[in-house]
Amino acid sequence: MNDERWERIQRSFDQQTAANLLGIRLNRVAEGEVEVSLPFRADLCQQHGYVHAGIITTLIDTAAGYAALSVLPPEREVVSTEFKVNLMSPAVGERFIGRGWVVKQGRKLIVVQGEATAVQKDGSHTAIAIMQATMVSVRPAP
Amino acid sequence: MNDERWERIQRSFDQQTAANLLGIRLNRVAEGEVEVSLPFRADLCQQHGYVHAGIITTLIDTAAGYAALSVLPPEREVVSTEFKVNLMSPAVGERFIGRGWVVKQGRKLIVVQGEATAVQKDGSHTAIAIMQATMVSVRPAP
Amino acid sequence: MNDERWERIQRSFDQQTAANLLGIRLNRVAEGEVEVSLPFRADLCQQHGYVHAGIITTLIDTAAGYAALSVLPPEREVVSTEFKVNLMSPAVGERFIGRGWVVKQGRKLIVVQGEATAVQKDGSHTAIAIMQATMVSVRPAP
Amino acid sequence: MNDERWERIQRSFDQQTAANLLGIRLNRVAEGEVEVSLPFRADLCQQHGYVHAGIITTLIDTAAGYAALSVLPPEREVVSTEFKVNLMSPAVGERFIGRGWVVKQGRKLIVVQGEATAVQKDGSHTAIAIMQATMVSVRPAP
Repeated sequence: MNDERWERIQRSFDQQTAANLLGIRLNRVAEGEVEVSLPFRADLCQQHGYVHAGIITTLIDTAAGYAALSVLPPEREVVSTEFKVNLMSPAVGERFIGRGWVVKQGRKLIVVQGEATAVQKDGSHTAIAIMQATMVSVRPAP
Repeated sequence: MNDERWERIQRSFDQQTAANLLGIRLNRVAEGEVEVSLPFRADLCQQHGYVHAGIITTLIDTAAGYAALSVLPPEREVVSTEFKVNLMSPAVGERFIGRGWVVKQGRKLIVVQGEATAVQKDGSHTAIAIMQATMVSVRPAP
Repeated sequence: MNDERWERIQRSFDQQTAANLLGIRLNRVAEGEVEVSLPFRADLCQQHGYVHAGIITTLIDTAAGYAALSVLPPEREVVSTEFKVNLMSPAVGERFIGRGWVVKQGRKLIVVQGEATAVQKDGSHTAIAIMQATMVSVRPAP
Repeated sequence: MNDERWERIQRSFDQQTAANLLGIRLNRVAEGEVEVSLPFRADLCQQHGYVHAGIITTLIDTAAGYAALSVLPPEREVVSTEFKVNLMSPAVGERFIGRGWVVKQGRKLIVVQGEATAVQKDGSHTAIAIMQATMVSVRPAP
C-alpha cells in the first residue's frame, strides 16, 4: 500500500459530503484503480425498491474519478466532464462495489472505465452497471 | 393540467426514497416532458463544494424517466437502461432544475433528452449538464 | 453568409478524404452550427439495406466537429474526443441531413449536439439519430 | 472453430456494402466475441490524415454487432440502438483491429463493449478507441 496515495484520496474523499450522505466508503486505492463500496439502504431506492440508477452512477463515478486522480501529480485535481452508464441488472443486494480504472492518461483528459457489482447475502456477485467516462485534470480551486 | 397524469407520476415519485433523501421535487408534468427541482444542500456536494455529478445525474434521470412514463399507457412502467451526461459547468446555485423530454417513442425503447440548470439567488439560469438516454417500457413488478 | 468562415471550413472539409469517399457535402455554415448532407448510395449500407450506423455517425460527427470549429479562432483546429449516438429509426431515404450545433464552448472542450434526418422522395423528413459529443480545441498539426 | 457460427456471420457480413466499401474484413468469430480488421487507406481520413473517427466507429460497431449476433439463436438479427465511443489516440497505423464482446445478454437488449487498436509496421499495437453500446435483438426483415 502506497500510504501517500491513500491519504491524498481519503482526504479528498472526506470532503465529499454526498458520498457521506449516501454511505459510500473508500475500499482500495492502487495506481490507476480505485474501489469503493455502498451498503444497501432503503432510502436510496427508486420506485421498485432497487437502488436508484443515479446513486449507482455516483458510486461508479466516485471510483472512476479517484482512479484518474491516482495517476496525477499531487498538485492536480480531477473533475468528471462526461460519463456514459449502461444499467444491466436491477441494483438489488446487500451492498454494492464500485470500481474505476484508467484506460488512457492524456495530459489534460483521462479516459476511464468503471463498473458496479451487487453483492448478495450469500456472497455472490452480479455485475449491474458499466461506465465509460472522461475525467479532466484541473488546478485546485483557490 | 391533466390531473390523472400528474397523479400517476406523483404516486410513483412518492415511492422514490432516493428522491426524498436528496430533496428532489416534482414541478411540472406534461405529455412527454417533466420538470423536477432540487434545492442546494451542503450535504450533496463533491470535494469542491459543487453538487456531485452523480446527484445532478439523478435529478435529470428522474425528469427523463417520468417524461418517458408520461407517454406510456397506465399499465406500463419505465426503467433507465442507459444514459450519457455531459457536465458543462460546476453545479453551483441556490437550486437546480432538471428537465427531461421524449425524443422518440418506440414500442419498447423510448429515447429521451434532458438537461439541468442552476438557478442563482438573482434568478439567473445557467445550463450545467445535458443528458441523452434510453428508457425501457416494462411491465410493473408483481 | 460570412465568407471567411465558410472558406475556412470548406478548405478543411476538402481535406477529409473519408467525406469525399462517402459523398458527404457541406450545406451551410453559421456561427456555432453546421449542416452537411449525404445522398443515399447502395454501397453505404448494412445488411438490411439501411445506411450503416457508422456512416450516419460520420455524417453527424462531421457537422458537429465543424460547428465546434466555427466558434474557434482561425489558428485552432478541432478533433472529436468522444461521442454518443442514439439510432432511432432505420436510415432509409433519398438523402440524409446531418446537423451539429455548439451547446457549451469552453476554453479547451466544446460540448456539441447533433442529429441526422432522412429525407424521402416526397420531401418528408424523419429524425433518425441524435448525438451528444465533446470536441477538443487543438493546435494545428505541424 | 464453430463453422456454423462463422458462416452465419460471414453471410450477413457479405451483405454489408459499407464494410466492403471501406475494406473491413471479418477476422475471427467466437461465442460472444468478434474481431474485424481494416487496412489503412488514404481515402478514409479526416483533415489531418488520420482515419476518420466515424470510420473507426464503423469498425468497432461491426465487431460489436456481430459479437451480439453470435449469442443469439439463428432466427434473430441484431441492430445497434446506441453507442458511445471515446477516441483516445489518433488513428495512425498500417491497419486497425476492431474487437467487440458481449457484457450482458438480455432477452431483447445486449450490452456490448468494443475497442479499436492501431497496428504499426513494426507490429506494435496502440489502443485508439473504446466503445460501450446496446444492441437490440430483432426479427429478420421480411
